[in-house]
Amino acid sequence: MRHIHIVGIGTGNPEHLTVQAINALNAANVILVPSKGAAKTELADVRRDICQRYITNKTIRFVDYDVPSRQIADRSYVQSVDDWHEEISATYERLFLEHLAEDESAAFLVWGDPGLYDSTLRIIERVTARGKVPLDYSIIPGITSIQALTASHRIPLNLVGKPVQITTGRRLAESFPGIAETAVVMLDGEQAFSKIVDPDAYIYWGAYLGTKDEIIIAGRLADVSERILATRAQARAEHGWIMDIYLLRKGQDFDDRA
Amino acid sequence: MRHIHIVGIGTGNPEHLTVQAINALNAANVILVPSKGAAKTELADVRRDICQRYITNKTIRFVDYDVPSRQIADRSYVQSVDDWHEEISATYERLFLEHLAEDESAAFLVWGDPGLYDSTLRIIERVTARGKVPLDYSIIPGITSIQALTASHRIPLNLVGKPVQITTGRRLAESFPGIAETAVVMLDGEQAFSKIVDPDAYIYWGAYLGTKDEIIIAGRLADVSERILATRAQARAEHGWIMDIYLLRKGQDFDDRA
Repeated sequence: MRHIHIVGIGTGNPEHLTVQAINALNAANVILVPSKGAAKTELADVRRDICQRYITNKTIRFVDYDVPSRQIADRSYVQSVDDWHEEISATYERLFLEHLAEDESAAFLVWGDPGLYDSTLRIIERVTARGKVPLDYSIIPGITSIQALTASHRIPLNLVGKPVQITTGRRLAESFPGIAETAVVMLDGEQAFSKIVDPDAYIYWGAYLGTKDEIIIAGRLADVSERILATRAQARAEHGWIMDIYLLRKGQDFDDRA
Repeated sequence: MRHIHIVGIGTGNPEHLTVQAINALNAANVILVPSKGAAKTELADVRRDICQRYITNKTIRFVDYDVPSRQIADRSYVQSVDDWHEEISATYERLFLEHLAEDESAAFLVWGDPGLYDSTLRIIERVTARGKVPLDYSIIPGITSIQALTASHRIPLNLVGKPVQITTGRRLAESFPGIAETAVVMLDGEQAFSKIVDPDAYIYWGAYLGTKDEIIIAGRLADVSERILATRAQARAEHGWIMDIYLLRKGQDFDDRA
């Protein structure tokens, strides 16, 4: 049976690779490499650097493939993602049939961790559900941008004994500042933090985390919100793309000490 | 100035170590190793294995130290943790003064990631605040038990575009099953899942994740709750200790497709 390794590779620092990830990459017959357009070439460079540094098995084949674009016309966000995953799963199926013998394995390099806001796993499950290509798969955890963010800011993710909400820009207002003491926002194209008015909220923001272009800004939200917006806009214009994440916090450790 | 590396080492699989973590350990002059009593000797064995595998710098010194016990009499949980951290910070201060020259560095090996339900960072900040030992510190992210759990179960952490709540056993009822579609519970000494009655809830449970003793159980909560309780009790009796974590979920991807 074909085997697919879904390998988390961290956020852009090649040293985020775990020993388990390096071993999984070297155990694969084929490395599948998406072509994602010129805008994110810096990310493609990091992926290439990771392969060059760590893949010592010279028999491994590299196969490039085009990722279909997400169609957004005439459908909701959820519909568009659902349809997109279906289309990518057809691409994967074709790749596995064309480039993998029945007893061979392939690896996908996934930014961050394959479990967190990534859909490679879901799409592999769709290929399995189609039933045309029998396959097994395994997941290798990787360092997420959440961990890269808290490490760079040198802060704990949670307050002592308290919960953390991981959410998206479009859902942030449901939990912060009303419910969550700590909210981490990923996938925010609208800078939802800038709409929050709360004098006690702090923000820890980061972009291009782990890479040589990393930027971090922290402070009271009311004080630094404008600076983050301006920095983000400028960086995005310079690079042609941005990946950022932030943590919002109210309260502090032991403020519930009786 | 003395420098302290707070190094995440993953959940018990030595292959969870990142290249960054391995480099940080080898860059230290001193590795600080807590003596934590006989009960968790398997964890001490894993830590020793990690050091033997990856620390190639033969000049590194290993320093054992006793971790103070948390006093719980006559105080709330929060008070007891606050007091405990203060006591540990005095231990750290003494360690740094006795075992580190002014230009030397030390490393702590932290299970999982230093940002997630770990207090080494907080305690280092207390040492800094005391002002007796000027020091700098850095954090190296590590694979958390959350990532080990989702990888072993081969599930995504989040549903598409939806939030995730990371919480504790004592706070679980606040968010699940009422608010969160996905809740991850760490630090649960009371098996809070067993008190949840919801026919649509699923649980993904794991113990000793990443180690050779890893156990995982998944299914509809109503169907597997008893089995998890029994398995957990037996494993705990056999090992003398347990570290476990679980994910609760309601709903599924694209169930909000319009």
